[in-house]
Amino acid sequence: MSKGEVARKGEATRKGEITRHAILEHAASLATKLGLEGLTIGRLADDLGLSKSGLFAHFQSKESLQLAVVEFAAERFVESAVKPSFSADRGEPRVRALFENWLAWPKRSGLAAGCFFVAASVELDDRPGPVRERLVKLQKDWLDTIAQAVRIAIAEKHFRRDVDPDQFAYETYGLMLVAHHFTRLLRDPAADGRARTAFENQLTKARLSQPYPMKGDP
Amino acid sequence: MSKGEVARKGEATRKGEITRHAILEHAASLATKLGLEGLTIGRLADDLGLSKSGLFAHFQSKESLQLAVVEFAAERFVESAVKPSFSADRGEPRVRALFENWLAWPKRSGLAAGCFFVAASVELDDRPGPVRERLVKLQKDWLDTIAQAVRIAIAEKHFRRDVDPDQFAYETYGLMLVAHHFTRLLRDPAADGRARTAFENQLTKARLSQPYPMKGDP
Repeated sequence: MSKGEVARKGEATRKGEITRHAILEHAASLATKLGLEGLTIGRLADDLGLSKSGLFAHFQSKESLQLAVVEFAAERFVESAVKPSFSADRGEPRVRALFENWLAWPKRSGLAAGCFFVAASVELDDRPGPVRERLVKLQKDWLDTIAQAVRIAIAEKHFRRDVDPDQFAYETYGLMLVAHHFTRLLRDPAADGRARTAFENQLTKARLSQPYPMKGDP
Repeated sequence: MSKGEVARKGEATRKGEITRHAILEHAASLATKLGLEGLTIGRLADDLGLSKSGLFAHFQSKESLQLAVVEFAAERFVESAVKPSFSADRGEPRVRALFENWLAWPKRSGLAAGCFFVAASVELDDRPGPVRERLVKLQKDWLDTIAQAVRIAIAEKHFRRDVDPDQFAYETYGLMLVAHHFTRLLRDPAADGRARTAFENQLTKARLSQPYPMKGDP
Protein backbone atom coordinates (compact mmCIF):
# COMPACT_ATOMS: atom_id res chain seq x y z
CA MET A 1 0.00 0.00 0.00
CA SER A 2 1.17 3.54 -0.71
CA LYS A 3 1.29 6.08 2.10
CA GLY A 4 -1.91 7.62 0.72
CA GLU A 5 -3.63 4.26 0.73
CA VAL A 6 -2.57 3.62 4.35
CA ALA A 7 -3.90 7.03 5.39
CA ARG A 8 -7.16 6.41 3.55
CA LYS A 9 -7.49 2.97 5.13
CA GLY A 10 -6.85 4.49 8.58
CA GLU A 11 -9.50 7.09 7.95
CA ALA A 12 -11.99 4.47 6.74
CA THR A 13 -11.38 2.40 9.91
CA ARG A 14 -11.88 5.46 12.09
CA LYS A 15 -15.10 6.28 10.24
CA GLY A 16 -16.18 2.67 10.68
CA GLU A 17 -15.44 2.91 14.39
CA ILE A 18 -17.36 6.16 14.71
CA THR A 19 -20.34 4.73 12.90
CA ARG A 20 -20.20 1.55 14.93
CA HIS A 21 -19.96 3.60 18.13
CA ALA A 22 -22.95 5.75 17.13
CA ILE A 23 -25.00 2.68 16.21
CA LEU A 24 -24.23 0.96 19.50
CA GLU A 25 -24.94 4.09 21.53
CA HIS A 26 -28.37 4.38 19.96
CA ALA A 27 -28.98 0.63 20.19
CA ALA A 28 -28.10 0.52 23.90
CA SER A 29 -30.55 3.36 24.65
CA LEU A 30 -33.23 1.66 22.61
CA ALA A 31 -32.64 -1.68 24.35
CA THR A 32 -32.91 -0.04 27.78
CA LYS A 33 -36.33 1.32 26.79
CA LEU A 34 -37.78 -1.40 24.55
CA GLY A 35 -35.71 -4.45 25.43
CA LEU A 36 -33.01 -6.28 23.52
CA GLU A 37 -35.67 -8.19 21.59
CA GLY A 38 -37.01 -4.85 20.36
CA LEU A 39 -33.68 -4.19 18.63
CA THR A 40 -33.97 -5.07 14.97
CA ILE A 41 -31.59 -4.17 12.19
CA GLY A 42 -34.59 -2.68 10.34
CA ARG A 43 -35.53 -0.43 13.26
CA LEU A 44 -31.92 0.73 13.71
CA ALA A 45 -31.56 1.43 9.98
CA ASP A 46 -34.74 3.56 10.05
CA ASP A 47 -33.76 5.45 13.22
CA LEU A 48 -30.22 6.20 12.07
CA GLY A 49 -30.86 6.74 8.35
CA LEU A 50 -28.45 3.94 7.45
CA SER A 51 -28.91 1.16 4.94
CA LYS A 52 -29.82 -2.29 6.22
CA SER A 53 -26.93 -3.74 4.19
CA GLY A 54 -24.52 -1.31 5.88
CA LEU A 55 -25.78 -2.45 9.28
CA PHE A 56 -25.44 -6.10 8.27
CA ALA A 57 -21.80 -5.36 7.48
CA HIS A 58 -21.35 -4.36 11.15
CA PHE A 59 -23.53 -7.03 12.76
CA GLN A 60 -24.17 -10.24 10.90
CA SER A 61 -27.13 -11.30 13.01
CA LYS A 62 -29.54 -10.08 15.66
CA GLU A 63 -27.60 -12.09 18.22
CA SER A 64 -24.25 -10.56 17.31
CA LEU A 65 -25.90 -7.11 17.48
CA GLN A 66 -27.30 -7.91 20.95
CA LEU A 67 -23.90 -9.16 22.15
CA ALA A 68 -22.20 -6.02 20.85
CA VAL A 69 -24.79 -3.87 22.63
CA VAL A 70 -24.23 -5.72 25.91
CA GLU A 71 -20.45 -5.19 25.59
CA PHE A 72 -20.99 -1.52 24.80
CA ALA A 73 -23.23 -1.06 27.85
CA ALA A 74 -20.70 -2.93 30.01
CA GLU A 75 -17.89 -0.59 28.91
CA ARG A 76 -20.08 2.41 29.63
CA PHE A 77 -20.90 0.95 33.05
CA VAL A 78 -17.21 0.53 33.88
CA GLU A 79 -16.56 4.15 32.83
CA SER A 80 -19.60 5.59 34.67
CA ALA A 81 -19.84 3.48 37.81
CA VAL A 82 -16.80 1.29 38.47
CA LYS A 83 -13.78 3.47 37.60
CA PRO A 84 -14.96 6.57 39.50
CA SER A 85 -15.47 4.39 42.61
CA PHE A 86 -11.83 3.34 42.55
CA SER A 87 -10.74 6.91 43.08
CA ALA A 88 -12.45 6.77 46.50
CA ASP A 89 -10.33 5.64 49.46
CA ARG A 90 -10.07 1.93 50.19
CA GLY A 91 -12.62 0.63 52.71
CA GLU A 92 -16.00 2.09 53.54
CA PRO A 93 -15.54 5.16 51.30
CA ARG A 94 -15.14 2.90 48.27
CA VAL A 95 -18.15 0.75 49.23
CA ARG A 96 -20.17 3.95 49.54
CA ALA A 97 -18.87 5.22 46.20
CA LEU A 98 -19.96 1.99 44.46
CA PHE A 99 -23.49 2.52 45.77
CA GLU A 100 -23.65 6.23 44.88
CA ASN A 101 -22.14 5.68 41.44
CA TRP A 102 -24.60 2.90 40.71
CA LEU A 103 -27.49 5.24 41.49
CA ALA A 104 -25.95 7.90 39.25
CA TRP A 105 -24.81 5.75 36.35
CA PRO A 106 -27.96 5.59 34.17
CA LYS A 107 -28.07 9.39 33.93
CA ARG A 108 -24.31 9.70 33.65
CA SER A 109 -24.10 7.07 30.92
CA GLY A 110 -26.28 9.13 28.59
CA LEU A 111 -27.91 5.91 27.40
CA ALA A 112 -31.43 6.14 28.80
CA ALA A 113 -33.29 6.99 31.95
CA GLY A 114 -33.04 3.50 33.46
CA CYS A 115 -30.35 0.88 33.99
CA PHE A 116 -29.60 -1.20 30.90
CA PHE A 117 -28.71 -4.23 33.04
CA VAL A 118 -31.85 -4.23 35.19
CA ALA A 119 -33.95 -4.16 32.00
CA ALA A 120 -31.88 -6.86 30.30
CA SER A 121 -31.86 -9.09 33.40
CA VAL A 122 -35.64 -9.32 33.53
CA GLU A 123 -35.95 -9.68 29.78
CA LEU A 124 -33.38 -12.45 29.39
CA ASP A 125 -34.01 -14.55 32.48
CA ASP A 126 -36.08 -17.00 30.41
CA ARG A 127 -34.03 -16.82 27.19
CA PRO A 128 -31.08 -19.20 27.23
CA GLY A 129 -28.18 -18.44 24.92
CA PRO A 130 -24.92 -16.54 24.66
CA VAL A 131 -26.45 -13.11 25.36
CA ARG A 132 -27.95 -14.31 28.63
CA GLU A 133 -24.65 -16.04 29.55
CA ARG A 134 -22.71 -12.86 28.97
CA LEU A 135 -25.16 -10.90 31.07
CA VAL A 136 -24.94 -13.39 33.93
CA LYS A 137 -21.13 -13.13 33.88
CA LEU A 138 -21.29 -9.32 33.99
CA GLN A 139 -23.78 -9.35 36.87
CA LYS A 140 -21.53 -11.73 38.83
CA ASP A 141 -18.55 -9.47 38.14
CA TRP A 142 -20.48 -6.53 39.56
CA LEU A 143 -21.44 -8.46 42.70
CA ASP A 144 -17.80 -9.55 43.07
CA THR A 145 -16.66 -5.94 42.73
CA ILE A 146 -18.89 -4.97 45.67
CA ALA A 147 -17.83 -8.03 47.71
CA GLN A 148 -14.15 -7.26 47.08
CA ALA A 149 -14.62 -3.68 48.29
CA VAL A 150 -16.27 -5.08 51.43
CA ARG A 151 -13.31 -7.43 52.02
CA ILE A 152 -11.01 -4.42 51.90
CA ALA A 153 -13.30 -2.53 54.30
CA ILE A 154 -12.99 -5.46 56.74
CA ALA A 155 -9.19 -5.51 56.31
CA GLU A 156 -9.13 -1.74 56.94
CA LYS A 157 -11.15 -2.39 60.14
CA HIS A 158 -13.99 -0.18 58.87
CA PHE A 159 -16.35 -3.17 58.92
CA ARG A 160 -16.66 -5.98 61.48
CA ARG A 161 -14.74 -9.13 60.70
CA ASP A 162 -17.92 -11.26 60.84
CA VAL A 163 -19.48 -9.40 57.90
CA ASP A 164 -20.06 -11.81 54.99
CA PRO A 165 -18.85 -9.92 51.89
CA ASP A 166 -21.05 -11.86 49.45
CA GLN A 167 -24.11 -11.46 51.65
CA PHE A 168 -23.37 -7.72 51.94
CA ALA A 169 -23.09 -7.50 48.15
CA TYR A 170 -26.38 -9.40 47.77
CA GLU A 171 -28.27 -7.10 50.16
CA THR A 172 -26.72 -4.00 48.62
CA TYR A 173 -27.75 -5.11 45.14
CA GLY A 174 -31.29 -5.48 46.53
CA LEU A 175 -31.13 -1.85 47.63
CA MET A 176 -29.98 -0.88 44.13
CA LEU A 177 -32.84 -2.79 42.52
CA VAL A 178 -35.51 -1.31 44.77
CA ALA A 179 -34.05 2.19 44.29
CA HIS A 180 -34.38 1.67 40.54
CA HIS A 181 -37.97 0.44 40.97
CA PHE A 182 -39.01 3.43 43.08
CA THR A 183 -37.41 5.92 40.72
CA ARG A 184 -38.35 4.37 37.40
CA LEU A 185 -41.75 2.79 37.94
CA LEU A 186 -43.21 4.52 40.99
CA ARG A 187 -41.55 7.92 40.28
CA ASP A 188 -41.56 8.34 44.04
CA PRO A 189 -40.08 11.72 45.05
CA ALA A 190 -38.87 10.09 48.29
CA ALA A 191 -36.91 7.45 46.33
CA ASP A 192 -33.47 9.01 46.76
CA GLY A 193 -33.95 9.59 50.48
CA ARG A 194 -35.20 6.04 51.04
CA ALA A 195 -32.23 4.61 49.10
CA ARG A 196 -29.71 6.54 51.18
CA THR A 197 -31.41 5.72 54.48
CA ALA A 198 -31.46 2.04 53.52
CA PHE A 199 -27.78 2.08 52.59
CA GLU A 200 -26.85 3.88 55.82
CA ASN A 201 -28.71 1.12 57.71
CA GLN A 202 -26.69 -1.41 55.75
CA LEU A 203 -23.40 0.32 56.64
CA THR A 204 -24.42 0.69 60.29
CA LYS A 205 -24.91 -3.08 60.57
CA ALA A 206 -21.45 -3.65 59.11
CA ARG A 207 -19.47 -1.09 61.14
CA LEU A 208 -17.19 -1.99 63.98
CA SER A 209 -18.48 0.82 66.15
CA GLN A 210 -22.03 -0.56 66.35
CA PRO A 211 -23.06 -2.14 69.63
CA TYR A 212 -23.21 -5.74 68.36
CA PRO A 213 -20.69 -7.28 70.79
CA MET A 214 -19.15 -10.53 69.54
CA LYS A 215 -17.66 -13.39 71.49
CA GLY A 216 -13.95 -12.81 71.64
CA ASP A 217 -14.17 -9.08 70.90
CA PRO A 218 -12.28 -6.89 73.33
CA MET B 1 -87.16 -15.40 28.47
CA SER B 2 -88.41 -18.94 29.07
CA LYS B 3 -86.85 -21.03 31.83
CA GLY B 4 -84.94 -22.97 29.13
CA GLU B 5 -83.62 -19.76 27.62
CA VAL B 6 -82.46 -18.52 31.03
CA ALA B 7 -80.68 -21.84 31.68
CA ARG B 8 -79.03 -21.75 28.26
CA LYS B 9 -77.98 -18.14 28.78
CA GLY B 10 -76.52 -19.07 32.19
CA GLU B 11 -74.58 -21.90 30.64
CA ALA B 12 -73.31 -19.68 27.82
CA THR B 13 -72.10 -17.12 30.38
CA ARG B 14 -70.35 -19.82 32.38
CA LYS B 15 -68.73 -21.12 29.20
CA GLY B 16 -67.71 -17.55 28.35
CA GLU B 17 -66.22 -17.16 31.82
CA ILE B 18 -64.33 -20.43 31.53
CA THR B 19 -62.93 -19.47 28.15
CA ARG B 20 -62.04 -16.00 29.41
CA HIS B 21 -60.35 -17.53 32.44
CA ALA B 22 -58.35 -19.96 30.28
CA ILE B 23 -57.32 -17.18 27.91
CA LEU B 24 -56.18 -14.94 30.74
CA GLU B 25 -54.32 -17.75 32.48
CA HIS B 26 -52.34 -18.43 29.32
CA ALA B 27 -51.89 -14.73 28.59
CA ALA B 28 -50.53 -14.01 32.08
CA SER B 29 -47.95 -16.83 31.75
CA LEU B 30 -46.96 -15.59 28.33
CA ALA B 31 -46.64 -11.99 29.58
CA THR B 32 -44.40 -13.11 32.44
CA LYS B 33 -42.06 -14.75 29.93
CA LEU B 34 -42.27 -12.48 26.88
CA GLY B 35 -43.62 -9.24 28.30
CA LEU B 36 -47.01 -7.59 27.98
CA GLU B 37 -45.98 -6.13 24.62
CA GLY B 38 -45.41 -9.68 23.38
CA LEU B 39 -49.11 -10.43 23.94
CA THR B 40 -50.96 -10.13 20.68
CA ILE B 41 -54.44 -11.33 19.89
CA GLY B 42 -52.94 -13.24 16.93
CA ARG B 43 -50.41 -15.06 19.13
CA LEU B 44 -53.08 -15.96 21.69
CA ALA B 45 -55.45 -17.20 18.97
CA ASP B 46 -52.69 -19.44 17.57
CA ASP B 47 -51.64 -20.78 20.97
CA LEU B 48 -55.18 -21.54 22.14
CA GLY B 49 -56.70 -22.65 18.84
CA LEU B 50 -59.33 -19.90 19.03
CA SER B 51 -60.49 -17.54 16.31
CA LYS B 52 -59.18 -13.98 16.32
CA SER B 53 -62.76 -12.72 16.07
CA GLY B 54 -63.70 -14.76 19.17
CA LEU B 55 -60.79 -13.18 21.05
CA PHE B 56 -61.79 -9.71 19.86
CA ALA B 57 -65.22 -10.38 21.38
CA HIS B 58 -63.51 -10.78 24.76
CA PHE B 59 -60.90 -8.03 24.44
CA GLN B 60 -61.57 -5.16 22.11
CA SER B 61 -57.99 -3.95 21.96
CA LYS B 62 -54.46 -4.88 22.95
CA GLU B 63 -54.72 -2.40 25.83
CA SER B 64 -57.93 -3.90 27.20
CA LEU B 65 -56.32 -7.35 26.94
CA GLN B 66 -53.26 -6.10 28.85
CA LEU B 67 -55.44 -4.52 31.54
CA ALA B 68 -57.43 -7.74 31.92
CA VAL B 69 -54.19 -9.72 32.24
CA VAL B 70 -52.88 -7.36 34.94
CA GLU B 71 -56.16 -7.76 36.90
CA PHE B 72 -55.99 -11.53 36.50
CA ALA B 73 -52.41 -11.64 37.80
CA ALA B 74 -53.37 -9.33 40.68
CA GLU B 75 -56.20 -11.69 41.73
CA ARG B 76 -53.84 -14.64 41.54
CA PHE B 77 -51.30 -12.70 43.64
CA VAL B 78 -53.91 -11.98 46.32
CA GLU B 79 -54.86 -15.69 46.41
CA SER B 80 -51.26 -16.97 46.40
CA ALA B 81 -49.38 -14.43 48.49
CA VAL B 82 -51.63 -12.01 50.40
CA LYS B 83 -54.50 -14.15 51.74
CA PRO B 84 -52.31 -16.99 53.08
CA SER B 85 -50.25 -14.39 54.99
CA PHE B 86 -53.32 -13.18 56.83
CA SER B 87 -53.76 -16.59 58.43
CA ALA B 88 -50.43 -15.99 60.21
CA ASP B 89 -50.56 -14.34 63.64
CA ARG B 90 -50.54 -10.55 63.82
CA GLY B 91 -47.10 -9.00 64.24
CA GLU B 92 -43.76 -10.48 63.24
CA PRO B 93 -45.24 -13.84 62.11
CA ARG B 94 -47.39 -12.06 59.54
CA VAL B 95 -44.48 -9.91 58.30
CA ARG B 96 -42.48 -13.11 57.91
CA ALA B 97 -45.39 -14.83 56.12
CA LEU B 98 -45.60 -11.96 53.60
CA PHE B 99 -41.93 -12.45 52.75
CA GLU B 100 -42.13 -16.25 52.51
CA ASN B 101 -45.33 -16.16 50.48
CA TRP B 102 -43.84 -13.64 48.08
CA LEU B 103 -40.90 -15.98 47.44
CA ALA B 104 -43.32 -18.87 46.89
CA TRP B 105 -45.98 -17.13 44.85
CA PRO B 106 -44.62 -17.44 41.29
CA LYS B 107 -44.49 -21.25 41.60
CA ARG B 108 -47.73 -21.43 43.54
CA SER B 109 -49.57 -19.22 41.04
CA GLY B 110 -48.98 -21.71 38.24
CA LEU B 111 -48.46 -18.78 35.86
CA ALA B 112 -44.77 -18.97 35.05
CA ALA B 113 -41.42 -19.43 36.68
CA GLY B 114 -40.93 -15.74 37.52
CA CYS B 115 -42.97 -12.93 39.08
CA PHE B 116 -45.43 -11.33 36.66
CA PHE B 117 -45.10 -7.97 38.44
CA VAL B 118 -41.30 -7.80 38.42
CA ALA B 119 -41.36 -8.44 34.67
CA ALA B 120 -44.16 -5.93 34.03
CA SER B 121 -42.53 -3.26 36.22
CA VAL B 122 -39.35 -3.20 34.17
CA GLU B 123 -41.22 -3.42 30.89
CA LEU B 124 -43.70 -0.64 31.58
CA ASP B 125 -41.54 1.90 33.43
CA ASP B 126 -41.11 3.90 30.21
CA ARG B 127 -44.61 3.32 28.78
CA PRO B 128 -47.14 5.83 30.10
CA GLY B 129 -50.80 4.85 29.97
CA PRO B 130 -53.55 3.09 31.87
CA VAL B 131 -51.73 -0.27 32.11
CA ARG B 132 -48.71 1.34 33.74
CA GLU B 133 -50.99 3.36 36.07
CA ARG B 134 -52.78 0.22 37.20
CA LEU B 135 -49.46 -1.52 37.80
CA VAL B 136 -48.16 1.40 39.88
CA LYS B 137 -51.32 1.31 42.02
CA LEU B 138 -50.95 -2.44 42.60
CA GLN B 139 -47.27 -2.08 43.54
CA LYS B 140 -48.13 0.67 46.03
CA ASP B 141 -50.89 -1.52 47.50
CA TRP B 142 -48.36 -4.31 48.03
CA LEU B 143 -45.87 -1.98 49.73
CA ASP B 144 -48.73 -0.67 51.91
CA THR B 145 -49.69 -4.23 52.83
CA ILE B 146 -46.15 -4.84 54.11
CA ALA B 147 -46.02 -1.46 55.90
CA GLN B 148 -49.36 -2.14 57.59
CA ALA B 149 -48.15 -5.53 58.85
CA VAL B 150 -45.07 -3.73 60.25
CA ARG B 151 -47.29 -1.18 62.03
CA ILE B 152 -49.12 -4.07 63.69
CA ALA B 153 -45.79 -5.67 64.65
CA ILE B 154 -44.82 -2.39 66.35
CA ALA B 155 -48.19 -2.21 68.14
CA GLU B 156 -47.70 -5.84 69.26
CA LYS B 157 -44.27 -4.82 70.60
CA HIS B 158 -42.51 -7.33 68.34
CA PHE B 159 -40.70 -4.47 66.59
CA ARG B 160 -39.15 -1.35 68.07
CA ARG B 161 -41.33 1.73 68.03
CA ASP B 162 -38.73 3.70 66.03
CA VAL B 163 -38.99 1.35 63.04
CA ASP B 164 -40.27 3.27 59.98
CA PRO B 165 -42.91 0.97 58.43
CA ASP B 166 -42.56 2.43 54.92
CA GLN B 167 -38.77 2.22 55.04
CA PHE B 168 -39.04 -1.38 56.27
CA ALA B 169 -41.41 -2.17 53.37
CA TYR B 170 -38.99 -0.51 50.94
CA GLU B 171 -35.99 -2.50 52.16
CA THR B 172 -37.98 -5.73 52.25
CA TYR B 173 -39.13 -5.19 48.68
CA GLY B 174 -35.45 -4.79 47.76
CA LEU B 175 -34.79 -8.21 49.30
CA MET B 176 -37.65 -9.65 47.26
CA LEU B 177 -36.29 -8.14 44.04
CA VAL B 178 -32.76 -9.38 44.59
CA ALA B 179 -34.07 -12.84 45.56
CA HIS B 180 -35.93 -12.91 42.24
CA HIS B 181 -32.80 -11.79 40.40
CA PHE B 182 -30.59 -14.48 41.98
CA THR B 183 -33.13 -17.22 41.35
CA ARG B 184 -34.28 -16.26 37.88
CA LEU B 185 -31.24 -14.77 36.18
CA LEU B 186 -28.26 -16.07 38.09
CA ARG B 187 -29.85 -19.46 38.96
CA ASP B 188 -27.71 -19.30 42.08
CA PRO B 189 -28.19 -22.41 44.24
CA ALA B 190 -27.44 -20.26 47.31
CA ALA B 191 -30.30 -17.87 46.42
CA ASP B 192 -32.84 -19.16 48.95
CA GLY B 193 -30.32 -19.20 51.79
CA ARG B 194 -29.14 -15.66 50.98
CA ALA B 195 -32.73 -14.41 50.87
CA ARG B 196 -33.56 -15.88 54.27
CA THR B 197 -30.34 -14.64 55.88
CA ALA B 198 -31.02 -11.17 54.51
CA PHE B 199 -34.57 -11.16 55.82
CA GLU B 200 -33.45 -12.40 59.25
CA ASN B 201 -30.98 -9.49 59.30
CA GLN B 202 -33.87 -7.20 58.46
CA LEU B 203 -36.00 -8.61 61.30
CA THR B 204 -33.09 -8.45 63.75
CA LYS B 205 -32.71 -4.72 63.11
CA ALA B 206 -36.42 -4.21 63.78
CA ARG B 207 -36.78 -6.34 66.94
CA LEU B 208 -37.13 -4.89 70.40
CA SER B 209 -34.69 -7.40 71.87
CA GLN B 210 -31.71 -6.18 69.83
CA PRO B 211 -29.12 -4.12 71.67
CA TYR B 212 -29.90 -0.79 70.00
CA PRO B 213 -30.71 1.27 73.11
CA MET B 214 -32.72 4.43 72.42
CA LYS B 215 -32.98 7.60 74.43
CA GLY B 216 -36.04 7.26 76.62
CA ASP B 217 -36.13 3.47 76.46
CA PRO B 218 -36.39 1.78 79.83
